[in-house]
Amino acid sequence: MKTQNINTPAIELNTSTWLNSDRPIKLNELIGRVVVLHTFQMLCPGCVLHGLPQAIKVRNSFSEADVVVLGLHTVFEHHSVMGKEALQVFLHEYNIHFPVGIDQAAAGSDIPLTMQAYGLRGTPSIILIDRKGQVRLNYFGVIDDMLLGAHIGQLMAE
Amino acid sequence: MKTQNINTPAIELNTSTWLNSDRPIKLNELIGRVVVLHTFQMLCPGCVLHGLPQAIKVRNSFSEADVVVLGLHTVFEHHSVMGKEALQVFLHEYNIHFPVGIDQAAAGSDIPLTMQAYGLRGTPSIILIDRKGQVRLNYFGVIDDMLLGAHIGQLMAE
Amino acid sequence: MKTQNINTPAIELNTSTWLNSDRPIKLNELIGRVVVLHTFQMLCPGCVLHGLPQAIKVRNSFSEADVVVLGLHTVFEHHSVMGKEALQVFLHEYNIHFPVGIDQAAAGSDIPLTMQAYGLRGTPSIILIDRKGQVRLNYFGVIDDMLLGAHIGQLMAE
Amino acid sequence: MKTQNINTPAIELNTSTWLNSDRPIKLNELIGRVVVLHTFQMLCPGCVLHGLPQAIKVRNSFSEADVVVLGLHTVFEHHSVMGKEALQVFLHEYNIHFPVGIDQAAAGSDIPLTMQAYGLRGTPSIILIDRKGQVRLNYFGVIDDMLLGAHIGQLMAE
Repeated sequence: MKTQNINTPAIELNTSTWLNSDRPIKLNELIGRVVVLHTFQMLCPGCVLHGLPQAIKVRNSFSEADVVVLGLHTVFEHHSVMGKEALQVFLHEYNIHFPVGIDQAAAGSDIPLTMQAYGLRGTPSIILIDRKGQVRLNYFGVIDDMLLGAHIGQLMAE
Repeated sequence: MKTQNINTPAIELNTSTWLNSDRPIKLNELIGRVVVLHTFQMLCPGCVLHGLPQAIKVRNSFSEADVVVLGLHTVFEHHSVMGKEALQVFLHEYNIHFPVGIDQAAAGSDIPLTMQAYGLRGTPSIILIDRKGQVRLNYFGVIDDMLLGAHIGQLMAE
Repeated sequence: MKTQNINTPAIELNTSTWLNSDRPIKLNELIGRVVVLHTFQMLCPGCVLHGLPQAIKVRNSFSEADVVVLGLHTVFEHHSVMGKEALQVFLHEYNIHFPVGIDQAAAGSDIPLTMQAYGLRGTPSIILIDRKGQVRLNYFGVIDDMLLGAHIGQLMAE
Repeated sequence: MKTQNINTPAIELNTSTWLNSDRPIKLNELIGRVVVLHTFQMLCPGCVLHGLPQAIKVRNSFSEADVVVLGLHTVFEHHSVMGKEALQVFLHEYNIHFPVGIDQAAAGSDIPLTMQAYGLRGTPSIILIDRKGQVRLNYFGVIDDMLLGAHIGQLMAE
C-alpha cells in the first residue's frame, strides 16, 4: 500500500459511500482548489466539540470556488454503533452539509483503508491539499483557528 | 398515566436498564438529598455541547452526600441508532461516570414513558428534586451555570 | 483596627465616595438582603476579564429585592492612574451600573482601609454577606459561576 | 493631509512616543515583513476583551522574521485618563510586550493624527500591511481569528 507523504500528490480517498453528495468525490477533480479534509468519528469528543465546528467555520468563511471542505468518517473502534445510518442522523442533527465520505473498511484490520494510507494517528485529523493536489499538512488533534486560517490563506495565495 | 407537576412528589423513573450503576436507581431511596436529573439524547447537540458538560460540572462541584446527579436517556427519535450499546460507547468516550437510566419505550408512541409522565418537551431537560422528593424545577433547554447553581444551592439549604 | 472574620457581622465599608449611587451605601441598611461585594482594580486583568462580567451576571440574574451587588475599588498599586475620574470612565465604558465605592486611602500604606479591615489578599476578591449581615465567604481570585450561584442560592434560602 | 487608501503604500505612523521599544518604529524599515497593526484605547472593552488578546495570539503564532505586531494607542475620548503613564501600567498588567506607539495628538481635534490619516472609524481597528509596505486591510471592529489568520497567511505567502 502506498503511504502518503507531505509535499507529494494526495492519494485518492478510498470510500464505501458519500453522504451530502449525489456522487463520489474524487480528489483529482478538485485540482485548482484548496482542499480541507477533516477526518473524524461521530462519537469522538474532540471531533464533536472542536474539529467539526471548526470545519463548519471553514466552510462558512471561504468561497467554495477557492476552498473545498470534505469530511471523512474514519471509524477505527466501536464500528457497530458508528455505521452509515447513525452517521446520517449525526450529520442531520449537527447541521453538517458538506460532503462526508465513509472510509473503506479493511479486511483483517480495525483501521479503514484511507486512514491507513494517510498514516493517520487518530481523530480528529486535518489534511490540507494545495491547488496542485499535493498534501501540505497532516495534523492530528486540535489546531487553533488562527493557525489553520493562516495555512489555508497561504495555500489560497499560491 | 399520572403527570408530574411542580411542587409535588417526583414520579418514579420508569427505565429499562441503568448504566454506570450495578442496580436500578429508585428516587424514593434518594430522599434527603437533592437530585439533579439531566435528560438527554446522545445525538442531540444541545445535550452534548451544553447539558452533559454542565451535568459533569454539577457532579464535580458538590458532595455526593448532598447532591445526586442522574442521567436519563429519553430517546424520542432515531431510536435505531441510539440503543443501549451506542449509549455505552458514548458514555465511555465522553467520560460520563454518573448513573444513566434508559427511559422505558412506550407501546405505540415514539416518546418513552418517563418522558411522557414528566411532560418533557424535548432534550436537554433538567429536573430538580428537593430533599423531600418533590419536583421543584422542570426546565427545557439551556440554563446558565449561575442560575442552575443558585437553584441547587437553595435546595441544599432547605 | 478590627479584622473581619467569617461568620461574624460585616465591618462597615470605609469609602471616600460612591459612584452609581446618589448617596453612600451602608451595609447595615442592607440587612435582610444578600450582599455580593466585588472588590477590584480597574487595571487588573482578572477583574476585567472575569470578576466584573460575573458581577454583572449576578446583577442580571437575581432580583434586587433579594440580592444587592456592590463594587469596591480597592486600589493598592498604581494609584496615580486609577483615581476617581479614571474609574468613572471605566464604569461608563464597561456598562457597570451597580454602585461602586472607592476604598478609603490609608495614611502610610498603599493598601486602603477596607481592604486592610477585610484582610483581602488581592483583586479580584468576592465577599458574600448573608441576610443577617454576617460575612459568609471571602474569596480571592476566580470562582466558577456555578459555585458562586450555589453560595448565593444558599444564602437566599436562609 | 494625505488619506490612506487600500492597496497603496502605508502612510508613516505619526507618534509622540513608543513603549516596549527603545527607539521609534518606522514602517519603511519593516519592508519585507507583514505588519499587523492593532489600534486601540486602553479603556475600550472591545479592545481589551478581543482585539488585544488576538494581537498577543498573532505575536505568539508567527515568527518575528515574517510578521511584525505593533500596537497604536489612538485615544480619541477621555484623553485625561488614558495618558502615557496609565498606558504603561496597562501594558505591564496585561503582559503586552510588543511595541506600542502613542498616536500624535492633533491641535484642535480630539482625533489624533494617525487615526485621521488612516480614516479609522473607532477602536479596535486592525491594519494589515504587506511585505511591500502596502495597506491591504483596514478593519474596524471584531474579526474572527480564522479570517485574520487567512489574511496574514495570504500576505506571508506573497
